[in-house]
Amino acid sequence: MTAMTVQDVNALGQAAQVASRKLARLSTKDKNRVLLNLAQLLRTDQEGVLSANQEDYQEAKAEGLEESMLDRLLLTSDRLNGTADEIQRVAELPDPIGEVIETTSLPNGLITSRRRVPLGVVGSIYESRPNVTVDIFSLCLKSGNACILRGGKETIRSNTALVALLRKALTDAGVTPDAVQFLDNPDRGLVDAMLKMDEYIDLLVPRGGANLVKFVAENANMPAVTGGIGVCHTYVDRAADLKMAAEIVHNAKVRRPSICNALDTVLINAEIASEGLPIIIKELTASGVELHCDNRALSILGPDAPDSARPANEDDWGREFLALIAAVKVVDSLDDALEHIETYGSGHSEAIITEDDSAATRFLDEVDAAAVYVNASTQFTDGGQFGLGSEVGISTQKFHARGPMGLRELTSYKWVIVGKGQVRP
Amino acid sequence: MTAMTVQDVNALGQAAQVASRKLARLSTKDKNRVLLNLAQLLRTDQEGVLSANQEDYQEAKAEGLEESMLDRLLLTSDRLNGTADEIQRVAELPDPIGEVIETTSLPNGLITSRRRVPLGVVGSIYESRPNVTVDIFSLCLKSGNACILRGGKETIRSNTALVALLRKALTDAGVTPDAVQFLDNPDRGLVDAMLKMDEYIDLLVPRGGANLVKFVAENANMPAVTGGIGVCHTYVDRAADLKMAAEIVHNAKVRRPSICNALDTVLINAEIASEGLPIIIKELTASGVELHCDNRALSILGPDAPDSARPANEDDWGREFLALIAAVKVVDSLDDALEHIETYGSGHSEAIITEDDSAATRFLDEVDAAAVYVNASTQFTDGGQFGLGSEVGISTQKFHARGPMGLRELTSYKWVIVGKGQVRP
Repeated sequence: MTAMTVQDVNALGQAAQVASRKLARLSTKDKNRVLLNLAQLLRTDQEGVLSANQEDYQEAKAEGLEESMLDRLLLTSDRLNGTADEIQRVAELPDPIGEVIETTSLPNGLITSRRRVPLGVVGSIYESRPNVTVDIFSLCLKSGNACILRGGKETIRSNTALVALLRKALTDAGVTPDAVQFLDNPDRGLVDAMLKMDEYIDLLVPRGGANLVKFVAENANMPAVTGGIGVCHTYVDRAADLKMAAEIVHNAKVRRPSICNALDTVLINAEIASEGLPIIIKELTASGVELHCDNRALSILGPDAPDSARPANEDDWGREFLALIAAVKVVDSLDDALEHIETYGSGHSEAIITEDDSAATRFLDEVDAAAVYVNASTQFTDGGQFGLGSEVGISTQKFHARGPMGLRELTSYKWVIVGKGQVRP
Repeated sequence: MTAMTVQDVNALGQAAQVASRKLARLSTKDKNRVLLNLAQLLRTDQEGVLSANQEDYQEAKAEGLEESMLDRLLLTSDRLNGTADEIQRVAELPDPIGEVIETTSLPNGLITSRRRVPLGVVGSIYESRPNVTVDIFSLCLKSGNACILRGGKETIRSNTALVALLRKALTDAGVTPDAVQFLDNPDRGLVDAMLKMDEYIDLLVPRGGANLVKFVAENANMPAVTGGIGVCHTYVDRAADLKMAAEIVHNAKVRRPSICNALDTVLINAEIASEGLPIIIKELTASGVELHCDNRALSILGPDAPDSARPANEDDWGREFLALIAAVKVVDSLDDALEHIETYGSGHSEAIITEDDSAATRFLDEVDAAAVYVNASTQFTDGGQFGLGSEVGISTQKFHARGPMGLRELTSYKWVIVGKGQVRP
């Protein structure tokens, strides 16, 4: 491990910036060649990565890292092949760079257009999953951006081995290996330095828990993507198809409880709660979901309440569980549901289950979130599912990009004006 | 003048946020009614504004404010009528809110679309020109945003009178007057408080000199528009039409030297400098432009150099003159021009004058600026000129919006997903 200093981090930033100017003009063909090289290397040169990963894994295990974290850290041959498939899909996505967004002929004969360009240099600070290293790189490269990566300290060997493959994929395609920069030193002081490098870094993408995202958003001098935190509600309206509601609620909670678009709270309209609640809860408890219920829900369930049901406390509203736990609350009206979501939601993904068009319309209009749903599972909030191909993260801010951020969301534009000697009167 | 406290500023923020939720759902008709009321009031109820402005003006004059600043501060009946005309034009612009940006039917039957929504609350901190009060308000209102305004201390009476008209225009249209909030206390501590109110303010728009913009960008917790600073170059290529070059350079410098899109430096290719420089300089000196020339330019001009020509020093490159001064430099090639612009430009507006398509293409591709021009004056960089109707400012950052920011650039979007019971596999 090198003894990297703040000066070294600045040098990485400078190198990334120089590389970004070349990447901005790289042809689609050259970018895809790098990605296909990388997909190939991830399939054929797995040994170095897997053995580095085993060292990380055994050390983390010896240090008592919890099972779910160990699983996130682990790379296997299958997982690397899966990552290779994803990179191949990124190669197949249309190149956003150079796209002409709008062209206008002005009355004075000037032709103005907006042309899509890369942001420049994207920094990413992330936690245990080493495949983020490859994901962020491939999306940045395809969108013409250089990247500076800082992964979790427990995966430093895995990431070092992966970055060596990224560099080889670049070099073999005749592209500067400076397109990817890697902080191979776990010193937190270097992260602090990175957060102040607004001269070199155009956008920071934190990937990880709420604390990391908050830390980056509050301390970065450059724009940072705020997101990845989802306190998601599904409101079962009085006009809901209850069977559909039960299926959607179940999927939104159980399919993958540990991701940000997973359901946290079920709100159910009082008019149909006596009939609906038992149906919905049956599916959830069958999958081992623990229920934190308000008093009205508990009294409706009465003696039939499952063992896993317990009274909710104030902290349960607005909590992101990331586990097989759901809060349940009975509300008197759509208005009460909207108010609850406004108070406790995090602006990520919110759903209404209803057959009533006017209720659906009000919900879509009035809920202020990155993704608002009628009659579907909030687990669809995902760049791949929304047709963006892939994503660097999910933004819950309104500035620049909201919701899943794919290739296009890693770009800016410039105004291009072509004249024949026009001067402004 | 009230004794406004930090708590009061927070209360303004909160009130603006509550109002913003109503504004987000206001009909186009209601928004336009407010704007037309305001245009009317600015034409018919001028007395209060003009007398308040006279008090500001006389006090500023007595305090020795310089002439150009006094002129920016001054309101006249004509100027108010002109502002009324502009507001009427904003009323005529299409409403960006509710626009469906893209709709996709996914293979699973989900219908996804992105719908344009307001940002929420826009804060603006600006200097002496009181018409900014009305400009920012009208663009925010039309785009469904509430605004919090903090004008210069020397115009506090004028702004107070204008804000009274804004409130009356709102109230008369049945819209909450909380849509506009005004800091009527010049205490700088309150500005500091405003910069930390990311809970209530979604975007800050600083309007004023470089120091103000820098201060806001560095100290605001929420996103801020960086811009309004233009170090603008016009490169006269070896394949330039020299007569066209002289006209464009003259217009870019002289039309209005005090605005950010005005020319600062002329770069001229050495191959045509002997012939071209005298032609270009003749027009400029006839209009009283002072020239800061590099040694090669001076030696080309020789004894014919105008009295106003003097040797440039290093500070002249990368300087925004905002006055009848231009720097002049002879470069050996397009490459040298590109390098000079990369080193000294501020990413605002840059132009090439050439009849050579390949030189034009390289310039448009390689210069990294909000607006890049071929054969036209950089003074066109303006929301009105680019067909946006109007602008709150010109962004030189790449995040969210670049170049002139009109109504659309004051918006975000939400993903709207309509299903029939879909769950994610």
